[in-house]
Amino acid sequence: MSSEPTAAVAAAEHAQHLLLGLFLIIASAKLLAEVFERLRQPAVVGEILAGVLIGPYVLNWVQPSEISHTLSEIGVILLLFSVGLETKPAAILQVGKTATIVAVLGVALPFVGGWGLMELRGASDIESMFVGTAMVATSVGITARVLAGMGLLGATSSRIILGAAVIDDVLGLLVLAVVASLAEGSTDFVKIGITAAVSLAFVAGVALLLAPMMTRHAPRLGANVRISHAAFVGSIVLCLGLAVAASWIGVAAIIGAFLAGMAIAEVSEGNHELHDQIRGVTEFMVPFFLVNIGMQLKLDVFADAHVVLLALAITVIAVITKLVGCGIGAWGLGLRGAAQVGMGMVPRGEVGIVVAQIGLSMGVISAELFGVVLFMAVATTLIAPPFLKPLFAGTKA
Amino acid sequence: MSSEPTAAVAAAEHAQHLLLGLFLIIASAKLLAEVFERLRQPAVVGEILAGVLIGPYVLNWVQPSEISHTLSEIGVILLLFSVGLETKPAAILQVGKTATIVAVLGVALPFVGGWGLMELRGASDIESMFVGTAMVATSVGITARVLAGMGLLGATSSRIILGAAVIDDVLGLLVLAVVASLAEGSTDFVKIGITAAVSLAFVAGVALLLAPMMTRHAPRLGANVRISHAAFVGSIVLCLGLAVAASWIGVAAIIGAFLAGMAIAEVSEGNHELHDQIRGVTEFMVPFFLVNIGMQLKLDVFADAHVVLLALAITVIAVITKLVGCGIGAWGLGLRGAAQVGMGMVPRGEVGIVVAQIGLSMGVISAELFGVVLFMAVATTLIAPPFLKPLFAGTKA
Repeated sequence: MSSEPTAAVAAAEHAQHLLLGLFLIIASAKLLAEVFERLRQPAVVGEILAGVLIGPYVLNWVQPSEISHTLSEIGVILLLFSVGLETKPAAILQVGKTATIVAVLGVALPFVGGWGLMELRGASDIESMFVGTAMVATSVGITARVLAGMGLLGATSSRIILGAAVIDDVLGLLVLAVVASLAEGSTDFVKIGITAAVSLAFVAGVALLLAPMMTRHAPRLGANVRISHAAFVGSIVLCLGLAVAASWIGVAAIIGAFLAGMAIAEVSEGNHELHDQIRGVTEFMVPFFLVNIGMQLKLDVFADAHVVLLALAITVIAVITKLVGCGIGAWGLGLRGAAQVGMGMVPRGEVGIVVAQIGLSMGVISAELFGVVLFMAVATTLIAPPFLKPLFAGTKA
Repeated sequence: MSSEPTAAVAAAEHAQHLLLGLFLIIASAKLLAEVFERLRQPAVVGEILAGVLIGPYVLNWVQPSEISHTLSEIGVILLLFSVGLETKPAAILQVGKTATIVAVLGVALPFVGGWGLMELRGASDIESMFVGTAMVATSVGITARVLAGMGLLGATSSRIILGAAVIDDVLGLLVLAVVASLAEGSTDFVKIGITAAVSLAFVAGVALLLAPMMTRHAPRLGANVRISHAAFVGSIVLCLGLAVAASWIGVAAIIGAFLAGMAIAEVSEGNHELHDQIRGVTEFMVPFFLVNIGMQLKLDVFADAHVVLLALAITVIAVITKLVGCGIGAWGLGLRGAAQVGMGMVPRGEVGIVVAQIGLSMGVISAELFGVVLFMAVATTLIAPPFLKPLFAGTKA
């Protein structure tokens, strides 16, 4: 019976290890956020760097796991939900035309840029297309957090960025579907067409039907519910429900969460209790998302100078193509507005990382190329916020 | 390359499966909570029954996993934190003497009762002691939630229950340490003594030193922090930090979380924004704890009539010994007060389940006995709330 106490000790150590991980993630994220705020840099960069610091490639205090991945996924869903909560459908519809042009150009240029560079280096067609795809989708979470921190989510450029990011996410997932189909040697154009149509119907359905319905009926429904904090509970259930619905119809879950927030944006306006409750759960979960991004920056593939050069080249192309593509799309706002929109669309973050992970798991990109795409995703995320603050300084909310 | 799309599909299905699980847990918990509120039964029973319903032994929509276990653990930690937040140290010290007597009698009687019944049935000494131990520790979360829902956390009986549950948890873990040591054939009395002394010092240190320090210095500290929602972030970091510290010194993590809440109870009074933010994250996470309890009720071991009879006998003894033991301890409050305290201490919930899991993993209790203890833990949790509401009706807050 000498091995028996080990099981009891192991269970206690597992729980302790879990709690220590949670503590280290939140405490380090907020400590570096505070340092960055004092350096007049965006807190979000500090939270990502906290992940790099405590992650497996520097201090190795916390390792990515199924748990950290899950908490990160809940974090990004709640983040997009709270971003949606600040986004009234009418405000996005006002900027719908510009947002669409921004999104289309911001998808086309980075894809061509990434694909072209890889083809010039002699990579296979599939590898080239996967790198191009990883450079397509903007991770609006980072930009939204910076803008929310400045109280500028309502500015015209912000609404164009948020609207374009929604459209761009849908376009990016369509590109991924096409490239993944090509990687298996088939192209089912009917299936791709159906996914596109359903996605658009989902977005339009929430913006044009669900949002007005919520505004009209939610207060009466809420008054008939007996459980406490019914508005908050209802909001969370709607958020998770639309996230599940989105992933069912083949769109990213975060789009569903964003749309859920948008659906109740108007009816929840001025409900401070509800907003504080949502802010509580968001503030608790979002650090897991940001730290998880930082933890995935693998440092040892960069011992090879060729990998470093390629990573830098891909990052430069990722920044320039998005900046120029989206900037041209938003030219009507003037030079400053175009620069705001272009820079706001630069971060690729977790969407690029997800594409890279799919490519790796399909065996169509190498470990080094995975490192390069990861570098690009994190670097674009780190590059944008320091430029966003001065670009948006003095902008009216 | 025909297996490649499978990987991409598997990743998407994994994320979708996770989100669907989260949605089902929260939605079913809140739906049954609403049903129970309308039946004038405690919502908490509905949330546990939701777990039984969607769990592997009835509908099998959601299976317990490392993820659900982790979310449940975060849930119970935040629950005890928010309970601590309603508990001012001065109020617990006022009831310290009664709480200590309630805790000691509420540990001794159930242990002797469970141990005695098993010995009479001819079980081994170790098996008997493990069942006794699983019947010791009160799971105050359930009672606290019922009382919080009635706005009665400040009542004398409530404060005795909360205080006694803290002491009783410490005593219960000491009993577990002794029994686990005996199970491996050794008794290190020095080590047990040290654990006891350190635990007591931890509780006293937070109540007598940290709480007054927070009240004096926290507002000035908070004013110097630049990150947004500093009070909330600081509270969460303190909660996780003390939970880790507690588990390091060998006390249950939930005690650390409870003490963290207690430490800032006074300084946070009247800060509605902070309270709403903490309520948001608590309301989001606690359903995972309650549903997880329900999901662990394994139904198929109860096909054997002997197991059913034993489970009922153990449950009856668990209820009576706690009711009588704690009731005698609180006799000074009169019959109604004694009944309130006794019934409030009846739920064993997750603490009994943890003891059973340790016994099972140490190989000293059988799968059937594990089922019996699980039944007792869930049944005591279900039995108490319907009695608590009428017992506390009309009590002054």
